[in-house]
Amino acid sequence: MAPKNAFYAQSGGVTSVINASACGLIETARRHPERIGKVYAGRNGIVGALTEDLIDTSMESDQAIAALRHTPSGAFGSCRYRLKGLEENREEYERLIEVFEAHDIGYFFYNGGGDSQDTAHKVSQLSDRLGYPITCIGIPKTVDNDLPLTDCCPGFGSVAKYVAVSTLEAGLDVCSMAETSTKLFVLEVMGRHAGWIAAAAGLAAESEDQPPHIILLPEVPFRRDAFLELVRRTVERCGYCVVVVSEGLRDGDGAFIADGGSTDAFGHTQLGGVGPVIARLCRDELGYKHHCAVADYLQRAARHVASKTDVDQAYAVGAAAVEMALAGSNAVMPAIVRKRDDPYQWEIGSVPLADVANRERRLPPEYINSDGFGISDACRRYLRPLIQGEDYPPYRDGLPDYVRLKNVSVPRRLGTAFAL
Amino acid sequence: MAPKNAFYAQSGGVTSVINASACGLIETARRHPERIGKVYAGRNGIVGALTEDLIDTSMESDQAIAALRHTPSGAFGSCRYRLKGLEENREEYERLIEVFEAHDIGYFFYNGGGDSQDTAHKVSQLSDRLGYPITCIGIPKTVDNDLPLTDCCPGFGSVAKYVAVSTLEAGLDVCSMAETSTKLFVLEVMGRHAGWIAAAAGLAAESEDQPPHIILLPEVPFRRDAFLELVRRTVERCGYCVVVVSEGLRDGDGAFIADGGSTDAFGHTQLGGVGPVIARLCRDELGYKHHCAVADYLQRAARHVASKTDVDQAYAVGAAAVEMALAGSNAVMPAIVRKRDDPYQWEIGSVPLADVANRERRLPPEYINSDGFGISDACRRYLRPLIQGEDYPPYRDGLPDYVRLKNVSVPRRLGTAFAL
Repeated sequence: MAPKNAFYAQSGGVTSVINASACGLIETARRHPERIGKVYAGRNGIVGALTEDLIDTSMESDQAIAALRHTPSGAFGSCRYRLKGLEENREEYERLIEVFEAHDIGYFFYNGGGDSQDTAHKVSQLSDRLGYPITCIGIPKTVDNDLPLTDCCPGFGSVAKYVAVSTLEAGLDVCSMAETSTKLFVLEVMGRHAGWIAAAAGLAAESEDQPPHIILLPEVPFRRDAFLELVRRTVERCGYCVVVVSEGLRDGDGAFIADGGSTDAFGHTQLGGVGPVIARLCRDELGYKHHCAVADYLQRAARHVASKTDVDQAYAVGAAAVEMALAGSNAVMPAIVRKRDDPYQWEIGSVPLADVANRERRLPPEYINSDGFGISDACRRYLRPLIQGEDYPPYRDGLPDYVRLKNVSVPRRLGTAFAL
Repeated sequence: MAPKNAFYAQSGGVTSVINASACGLIETARRHPERIGKVYAGRNGIVGALTEDLIDTSMESDQAIAALRHTPSGAFGSCRYRLKGLEENREEYERLIEVFEAHDIGYFFYNGGGDSQDTAHKVSQLSDRLGYPITCIGIPKTVDNDLPLTDCCPGFGSVAKYVAVSTLEAGLDVCSMAETSTKLFVLEVMGRHAGWIAAAAGLAAESEDQPPHIILLPEVPFRRDAFLELVRRTVERCGYCVVVVSEGLRDGDGAFIADGGSTDAFGHTQLGGVGPVIARLCRDELGYKHHCAVADYLQRAARHVASKTDVDQAYAVGAAAVEMALAGSNAVMPAIVRKRDDPYQWEIGSVPLADVANRERRLPPEYINSDGFGISDACRRYLRPLIQGEDYPPYRDGLPDYVRLKNVSVPRRLGTAFAL
């Protein structure tokens, strides 16, 4: 009997290392041709499965697949598309089975965050509920670092490094100009509900007087007056003030301080703009000349300054997903297990998808310092290992030599369309 | 007779490589103790000279000075402070002479952009006009790349590399999400009057269909309808659109599209905010989901992704300034002379400060493509060499190991204060 093929898809916001997970998965699968046939990638994530738009990764050379390790973004396309529950939209699941059956797919690998692990969990129920035998493994990925039951999420370590490096560099810049120019610098970073990314900026400071002087976390309701007073005192003491603010900053009533007013396909509010709001507040109330940077996609795409630890972990969870599937596991996700802080030691564990889905891990209170405007030493101990090591991409002609795959389509076998 | 001391100051917005110029200057001066005594740095630029707030760089170890080569920002502090003309404010020049005399300063090295070369030029007139003998050399620096008579300005190559790398990375990110999410990504970069930085983003594209699809330059008056039409056509053709916009974008009447409403010490309007303006325009008129990044200080501080060519040139102009002074030159600025495009060959030339001061070099028409929304091949040929090579800083514990100097003050010899 020919070995079953595998389906792999990238889901949700991409990261600078999600392709490293794809690399680990495909390279490992290629070492087991007796157990896994071809790896088909969904073009634009699960949407590719529903529309029978599959990419034949076997058409890519070993060299191209190896280059995924140093290429940011989602090489096969990702999507923001959430499967409803089996009861609510049985058609979607029946369609998945139809496509999987037509392409002899026996493995489902889904690479994403909390919403995606929920989808993976639902797909894992196909065997029991709809009688289609499939091995289903989730692969963790999210810059937000908000998945439970794993030490961290691949993708986060590199954003953390980007934000810490950028804060260090911009902090030196502002420091050298403050005497006659900019007194306040605000950096807006991602993090809708969890402040991990903003917290990582705290790694840039070796003492209280070094930037960032203030971190505004979504876990701590914004206190306008206390904030302004701290900015004022910091400028008096240090001559300038660097503030890092999470896009998800909220007021005491839980409302976002800045809200773009639109929502994404998961029903999440699309944010952005809180940095300028904070900067203007300081200008209006304190009169400081200010600058504001909004890192937006630059932070999660910044493979050029990736954390080696993060790249290694991203590769490892991709490889482990295949190994787990071959070992007979199902409905699980490989997780990072921390064995030691310093030097950092980690290994790959396994957690049930049912326990991961739809649970968000936010910054625990003990990671936030007493005034709520910074991080604790415990938080530093947790974060520091995740940004260790550099893993530069190769450069060609002055720019990173990122791979663009051929992404050859698998010929369709079904004559049917599917409306999303 | 004891050799004269030197005064060195950093001026205007700092860059990721201005300290490399300081490194070249101090290391070269240290090799000529028979000709140059101590190098005193102005704390916060020329302000340090006026207030007799000098830093004794001889208190820094060779190792610390060497580390300036890989440390961004202005290690001695910079300033936005412009000397008026000799006639308008003779007191400032008399004060400079008073301080120079008190500290036996015979060399004046001023590291900055167009305004600063103007200051250097005025100081060079002290010998003739006020009878104080001083050798005065300007050292070019500006991320804006707008100084005339030099192939490029140290500081620009690294911003160019940062912007090209960031556009490449964010472009891959948006491309992988566009099917179900963000269709439009806008990156706002610096460039008040000259579009060199925005133009550099164009290096990220290897073909017309690759990001950035549109570059909005300050040299080309913004045409709203043509822009929107091009965005629409790009999204139809490519599935998404990446726009890079210069902060200095203007309308047909020469008014800034976005204007923070405040001005800096040089009387320049403080900009920022054009990126969100452009993104909202596309959302309102075309309905696309959008994201916007504002690089702000991150771009000019990003030593972690500096261009090796830029670092080498920054060091070279610092070293050449000393060599020129020792060779008897005065009132000149070392300039980069391009000998060849590919492979790039350059050498250090010399231009009179009188010819550099207050002249701004903008993108020439032949560097802008025919529709005004991108760069020409000639522009690519000019820009490409400037981003060549990587020159990573050393890392310690996951972060760049940037040096913080001791910056020991030179004891004051004057009992007089000076009001700025």
